[in-house]
Amino acid sequence: MSDHQPAGGVRLSLAEVEELTRRALLACGVDPRNEGAITASVVAAEADGIHSHGLARLPTYCEHARVGKIDGKARPVLDSPRPGLVRVDAKGGFAHPAIDFGLPALCEAAKAQGIAALAVSNSYNCGVVGYHVERIAQHGLLALAFVNAPASIAPMGGTKPVFGTNPIALAVPRAGLDPLVLDQSSSVVAKSEIVVHQQRGEPIPLGWALDRDGEPTTDPKAALAGGTMVPAGGYKGAGLALIVEIFAAWLTGANLSIDASSFADNLGGSPRTGQFFIAIDTGALAGDGSTERLERLFGAITGQEGARLPGSRRTSARQRMAAQGITIPQKLFDTLQAYASAGAAAQRGVELTG
Amino acid sequence: MSDHQPAGGVRLSLAEVEELTRRALLACGVDPRNEGAITASVVAAEADGIHSHGLARLPTYCEHARVGKIDGKARPVLDSPRPGLVRVDAKGGFAHPAIDFGLPALCEAAKAQGIAALAVSNSYNCGVVGYHVERIAQHGLLALAFVNAPASIAPMGGTKPVFGTNPIALAVPRAGLDPLVLDQSSSVVAKSEIVVHQQRGEPIPLGWALDRDGEPTTDPKAALAGGTMVPAGGYKGAGLALIVEIFAAWLTGANLSIDASSFADNLGGSPRTGQFFIAIDTGALAGDGSTERLERLFGAITGQEGARLPGSRRTSARQRMAAQGITIPQKLFDTLQAYASAGAAAQRGVELTG
Repeated sequence: MSDHQPAGGVRLSLAEVEELTRRALLACGVDPRNEGAITASVVAAEADGIHSHGLARLPTYCEHARVGKIDGKARPVLDSPRPGLVRVDAKGGFAHPAIDFGLPALCEAAKAQGIAALAVSNSYNCGVVGYHVERIAQHGLLALAFVNAPASIAPMGGTKPVFGTNPIALAVPRAGLDPLVLDQSSSVVAKSEIVVHQQRGEPIPLGWALDRDGEPTTDPKAALAGGTMVPAGGYKGAGLALIVEIFAAWLTGANLSIDASSFADNLGGSPRTGQFFIAIDTGALAGDGSTERLERLFGAITGQEGARLPGSRRTSARQRMAAQGITIPQKLFDTLQAYASAGAAAQRGVELTG
Repeated sequence: MSDHQPAGGVRLSLAEVEELTRRALLACGVDPRNEGAITASVVAAEADGIHSHGLARLPTYCEHARVGKIDGKARPVLDSPRPGLVRVDAKGGFAHPAIDFGLPALCEAAKAQGIAALAVSNSYNCGVVGYHVERIAQHGLLALAFVNAPASIAPMGGTKPVFGTNPIALAVPRAGLDPLVLDQSSSVVAKSEIVVHQQRGEPIPLGWALDRDGEPTTDPKAALAGGTMVPAGGYKGAGLALIVEIFAAWLTGANLSIDASSFADNLGGSPRTGQFFIAIDTGALAGDGSTERLERLFGAITGQEGARLPGSRRTSARQRMAAQGITIPQKLFDTLQAYASAGAAAQRGVELTG
C-alpha cells in the first residue's frame, strides 16, 4: 500500500481526520450509531499510512450512503446458531458496524470453545482487513480473516472475472508488543492501488492488471473498466482467491463475487459481500514457551539483512502519522468538505420540513 | 504434480501398490496398527496420479523407519483441551496414523460446536495434504489445512530459509460429487517435484529454486543442497508461508520449520513438524440454497473455455489409474522390493532369536 504524499496538499492531524470523517458521514445520512465504527477505521488507516483505504475511500462511502446504495441507517442483527459460530447480518448497511457488533461475541465464543468463527453477510467494503484482525488479536486471540469483493480476478485458464481481489489477513498477539498483522490480497496489488493511480492520473506498472481483452495494460482506466486483476503467483493466487471466496462469500451466505455490485459506482444496490473471521485461544495448544518460540520465528526473519516482518511499515507509519499528521490532495479535501456541507444542508432541509 | 510415466518400467495394479507398500513398511519395523494409514495414503496418491507423493516417497518412509529417524512403533496420543480443539501428539512417529487418529474426534467436535480444529504435533511428512482434507469433506464438513516442513523458503527481503514449502489445502463437500479439493504449496512448486527431477536426472525449470548463493538454478541438486525454493507470487507467497507456519508449527507446538530436520536424509532425529486442520459444519451458516450457490460459483469457472476447477486432474486420473494401474521405474521397484525383503529377513532374524 502506498504512502506517497502529494506536495501542496492539505495537512490534517488525526483528530482533524476524525472530525472531517464524522461530519461527512453524518451529513450523508449515516446513523450516529453506525458512524463511529466507520470513522475509527478511516482514522486507523490514515494512522497506519494506508491512505488508499483512508480518506481516499471516504467519498465513495459518503456517496453510497447519500444515494442509498448502502443503507447508512441499517442496524446489524446478530445470532449464534452454534456454540462456536457467530453470525451477523449487515442488512445491506456498512461493513464496519456489522463487524464491530460481532467481534465481542466472537472473542467470547473463542475463549469458551477454543476456536470460533464470525460470519458477516449482506455486507460491504470493510476497508483494511488487518484493522479487524488486529483488534481480535488485542484480545489475546490468534485471528484469520477472509473477505470477498466484486469479481475482478479470472480463474486459472479463464479470462472472465470470477473472484474478487479477495484478501486474507492474519494477526498474532505478541507479549508486550503490537500484534503481528499480515494483510494481503490474492491479486498482485489491491484494487484500491489502481483507484489511487487513476485519481492521481498516473499509469500503473505492467503486471498489475489486464484490460478487457486479457492484454496487459498500464492504463488504470482500462484495468477498472472491464479488465481483470492479475493474481499473485499465477494460478496459486487464483487458488487462494477461491479459498477466500468459499469462506467469505459462499459460507457466510453473502453475495458471490460474480453477483456483487461494484464497490466504486452507484449502480446495482448493495454489493452484499461477506467477511469471515476465525479466532483461536492459543494457550491450550501452543503451550509453555509459546512466546519464546514465536519470537524465535520472528527473529529468524528480522535477523536477516533486508528482511522485515509483515506490517512493520504500518508500525513505523503509526508513530510518524501520530506526530506529523497526514497530507491529502486539495481536491480530495474539497470533495470531503462538500459532502460534509451538502449533507449538512440536506439535513437542515429535513429538519425544516420534518 | 507430475503424472509423467517412464517407458520400460514396472506396471502395477493399485492392489499391487497396496501390497508392496504394506510389505515394505512392515518389513522396516512399522507397527501393523500404524502401517494401514500410511499405505492407504500411498495408494491414494498413486490413484490420483500424484506419483511424487506415492511410491516415489516410500523408500524414504522405509529408510526413516528402518534407521529409527521416525519411530514406526510410536502410538499417537489424543486429548481435547477445549470443546472445539482436538490435539494429537504423533510422538515422533509417522504423520498418517496421528492424523487418522484425530480425524473422527475433529469431525465430531465440528458437528457439535459448528467449528473445530485438530492440531497434530511432533509429526512428520503427511504426504498429499488434499488427501486428508478430502476425508474431512466426506463427512460433510468444510475443511482447511496448514502443514509445515523443513525450512526452504526465505522471508521477503531475506536470503536464508525460514519457512517450509508450507502447503495449504481446502476441501468443499459437493452434493452427489467428490469434494472439491485444492492443495497448493507456498512455493512455485512442491519440493517433491524437485526430488522427482533429481531422481530422474532431469534439470528443473528456471524460477523454481535458487542455489545456496541466492542465484536462480536449473540443477535440482543445487536447489536441494543449501538452496531455497522460490515463493509463488514473491512476497505474497512468503506471506502465505508465514500464515501456514503460525498455524501448523507455532500453534500446534511442533517444531518450527527452521528447527525441523530434513524429510529426505537420515540425520537429526524426527522432524517433529505439525499439521493443523479446521473443520466447519456449514449448514448453519451457508443456509438454504447453499448447494445451488456453490455449483453456481463452480459453473462460473467450468463454463469458461480453458478454465478448470482445482483437483479436476486428480478426478480424471482416479478413473484412469483404477482401470490401468500405474508404471514405476524399474530402479524404484527394485529399491522397494529390497526394503520389503531385507526388512523381512531382519524380521525373520528377530523371530529366530526372539
